[in-house]
Amino acid sequence: MAHPLASSVQVLAFDIFGTVVDWHGTIVREMSLLHPGVDGDAFARAWREGYRPAMARVMKGELGWTPIDQLHRMILDDILPRFGLQDMGDVERRYLNRAWHRLDPWPDSVEGITRLKRRYTVCTLSNGNIGLLTNMAKRAGLPWDCVLSAEVFRAYKPDPATYLGVAQVFDLLPEQVMLVAAHHDDLAAARACGLRTAYIQRPLEFGAAHPKDVAAHPGNDLHCADMNALADELGA
Amino acid sequence: MAHPLASSVQVLAFDIFGTVVDWHGTIVREMSLLHPGVDGDAFARAWREGYRPAMARVMKGELGWTPIDQLHRMILDDILPRFGLQDMGDVERRYLNRAWHRLDPWPDSVEGITRLKRRYTVCTLSNGNIGLLTNMAKRAGLPWDCVLSAEVFRAYKPDPATYLGVAQVFDLLPEQVMLVAAHHDDLAAARACGLRTAYIQRPLEFGAAHPKDVAAHPGNDLHCADMNALADELGA
Repeated sequence: MAHPLASSVQVLAFDIFGTVVDWHGTIVREMSLLHPGVDGDAFARAWREGYRPAMARVMKGELGWTPIDQLHRMILDDILPRFGLQDMGDVERRYLNRAWHRLDPWPDSVEGITRLKRRYTVCTLSNGNIGLLTNMAKRAGLPWDCVLSAEVFRAYKPDPATYLGVAQVFDLLPEQVMLVAAHHDDLAAARACGLRTAYIQRPLEFGAAHPKDVAAHPGNDLHCADMNALADELGA
Repeated sequence: MAHPLASSVQVLAFDIFGTVVDWHGTIVREMSLLHPGVDGDAFARAWREGYRPAMARVMKGELGWTPIDQLHRMILDDILPRFGLQDMGDVERRYLNRAWHRLDPWPDSVEGITRLKRRYTVCTLSNGNIGLLTNMAKRAGLPWDCVLSAEVFRAYKPDPATYLGVAQVFDLLPEQVMLVAAHHDDLAAARACGLRTAYIQRPLEFGAAHPKDVAAHPGNDLHCADMNALADELGA
């Protein structure tokens, strides 16, 4: 039997990096092809670690509005010397930076989201820019009804403008929207705005060498092993 | 053989009302079910005629940023007395206003756009709001890669921010984007921004009683009978 929320929720908004796609595994694989001698695991984590500080600079007004593609490039330029890659040319940097458009979905993502789409409106809610998310979806076969992004709301998560923005776009109450994410801080911020929340376990988000604690958090409405489990819970 | 532009264009941005969907036919049909005594043809045209003046009020700053759903409702409230429907209640007005989310695609739209999606990124570029366009696509089966709207750019077409915004979203040059529309003024504004343009003939946009001149305009790159003809031209 479907969860009681199945009938009140109308829109499922999905976090992307780590929740729907495997950024760590993809960056490691791309790096192993380009520079097999580099520690791809450390490189992937360093690139990702620069992400929050870079967004914080934008939100504090130190930088104007900046799409994630540009933030990824700034961080890349910053970390390359640490991995002995300071001589990488611009063409390769551009190519590597676009790896974030080529992230592979977790094995359950396309099937689970396709099932959920039959019953719900499924959209992204990511700090990634619209072009990145669209290119990723087209390559991976992610069947979004609509691509929503920090770029639409001119604010990054966890700014309330993003979570409430989804409800406004669809002319719904916050509790008719559910955020689906693998990160408790993102879900907590959505909950504070009145959204429903579903946690997805992604123990390997940071690679097999750094397993993530995926224990249940009592605040979330749902706690699921993957997207197919979410579809089961929601009767889709 | 595909048109030479087939290899340089990457993104096709579609105008929606009249180009992809039949607003006149759908509004006439919805009205004939609700109020068979009303002249549905005149009613549909009156509703649509209020659209440009309402957007102009927003662009002049007389009204703040207003989603098309709200503009449609303002126009509806304004025209109902002319059709003897001044007593229509709020519930019915809300229902009728959502007819713009239920517009039927022209018979060739889903097939042609599905073909084009195999080779190009296909997105909307409409003054309709994101929620309206997403609901419409879900009901009609329109397979957009991405829903772009005046709401994303906080400007209505023909503001250059909308046409150039599509190129910016995808990090492309304007000439790598093609606007597909059934309206010469929309296409001319896109052309002035450097976009490529394809005109789609929709002689019945205003109903069979008011056939539209669909003669070719020399400025457009392509002039097509329908979306399948566009797919033929572009080798999709």
